[in-house]
Amino acid sequence: MLLDKKGFILDIDGVIGRGKKPIPEGVEAVKRLREMGKKILFVSNNSTRSRRIMLERFKDYGLEVSEDEILIATYATARLIAKEKKRAKVYTTGEEGLKEELRLAGLEIVDYRDAEYLVVGSNRGINFQIMTEALRLCLREDVRYVAVNPDKIFPAEDGPIPGTGMIIGALYWMTGREPDVIVGKPSEVIMKEALNILNLKPDEVVVVGDQIEIDVLAGKKIGATTVLVLTGVTKREDIERKAKEAGVYPDYVFESLLDMLRES
Amino acid sequence: MLLDKKGFILDIDGVIGRGKKPIPEGVEAVKRLREMGKKILFVSNNSTRSRRIMLERFKDYGLEVSEDEILIATYATARLIAKEKKRAKVYTTGEEGLKEELRLAGLEIVDYRDAEYLVVGSNRGINFQIMTEALRLCLREDVRYVAVNPDKIFPAEDGPIPGTGMIIGALYWMTGREPDVIVGKPSEVIMKEALNILNLKPDEVVVVGDQIEIDVLAGKKIGATTVLVLTGVTKREDIERKAKEAGVYPDYVFESLLDMLRES
Repeated sequence: MLLDKKGFILDIDGVIGRGKKPIPEGVEAVKRLREMGKKILFVSNNSTRSRRIMLERFKDYGLEVSEDEILIATYATARLIAKEKKRAKVYTTGEEGLKEELRLAGLEIVDYRDAEYLVVGSNRGINFQIMTEALRLCLREDVRYVAVNPDKIFPAEDGPIPGTGMIIGALYWMTGREPDVIVGKPSEVIMKEALNILNLKPDEVVVVGDQIEIDVLAGKKIGATTVLVLTGVTKREDIERKAKEAGVYPDYVFESLLDMLRES
Repeated sequence: MLLDKKGFILDIDGVIGRGKKPIPEGVEAVKRLREMGKKILFVSNNSTRSRRIMLERFKDYGLEVSEDEILIATYATARLIAKEKKRAKVYTTGEEGLKEELRLAGLEIVDYRDAEYLVVGSNRGINFQIMTEALRLCLREDVRYVAVNPDKIFPAEDGPIPGTGMIIGALYWMTGREPDVIVGKPSEVIMKEALNILNLKPDEVVVVGDQIEIDVLAGKKIGATTVLVLTGVTKREDIERKAKEAGVYPDYVFESLLDMLRES
């Protein structure tokens, strides 16, 4: 049964909050899961924020969360690179939040000409120079190319906005090269890191999210139990189509994270 | 024979000049072709300049050229749209040179929410807002999507820089949509316009350029005689590979445009 599981890997956007606004059922459910003694890890594909910035967001939601409970794709990217090569020289297209995590992991952010790694993350300050520098690195086979997440479009409040995929797509079109590693969901990279942090086996955890092709697919890849909640971008009438497209079905569907507790 | 042909469709960059610097053999050859009474049309894929700006460039080369002798992709794009719909409302990702041509063709440059056309051209001032607006238009099926050229990478003096293809690729990756029309070479759109302007038939013209996959392919598509010159980005040792990739071989290869006159 769902509530016999020891750990819960929870998506943030569309499950606990939407932008700066909390989703009350999500927040309440997190409190109850804690009372039940469950291990919780928030796993987010966000490519522009550091854990520090994310903690502020949780305060807006009225939730006390520690850095240990957050695995954000920026941080996971920094950890991955630091494991591959200590103090690696990296160039990134990304924002300050990503740079903060890269530095905290002991990596050196350098001029593009000196880079060993190209780290692609979304940037609301993207410009021609950044794209030019990323292009030149992408053309160099000795540079390892890591993308923070594969997200194509992000549903902002006033309409869709480009995700990290905008840069990945531009580079692919120009050079024929895709990232050597993608860290964020549905990649196994971030999910295996999540299991490590929780110190649990796949059959001991539940992966919860609002997107089949991202959260459910990620959960399936590591063999966890998967839950789709409808407080985010997926509507009930889209489930069948989205599941077919992604090639995976959620094990459970609930209106909200709180309903998961009520109905399990 | 080559010199029996009535018209010469000449690429600019890599044939007549490189950036702001003239290629003396190219400039001299243009003068001689004129003395021979040949019709000349300069056809360029440039997506950031207007004909007016291009005339300045020719002055740098020491060539007197009139607007009638220039078919630049910005101008061809504006003509195409104006033919499809007079006073159409257009949104463009492009620079002032492209906007100038769109306005001169009687088109109205509007807020993206009001646009009937999305016109994608390169922009050295590209930013997140422009990409967001282009993305939203790309998602609208009632908006016609026209790209000024398909160029992926441009070889600038200090290294490769993104071409219009950067934006096309980003939009394709995010939405799955490619342009409804691409105007610049190797598209037939600009080449047929060139024949119209010259008022000549394909077997009466020679198409000269420095790129097999762009200029030679464009010439082949309209059934013209094609000439590759080696004053631009293509080296002699690359010809075989480039030709195989493009699926077309140039009818003639010369070191320079002047050599075409000397050896024909």
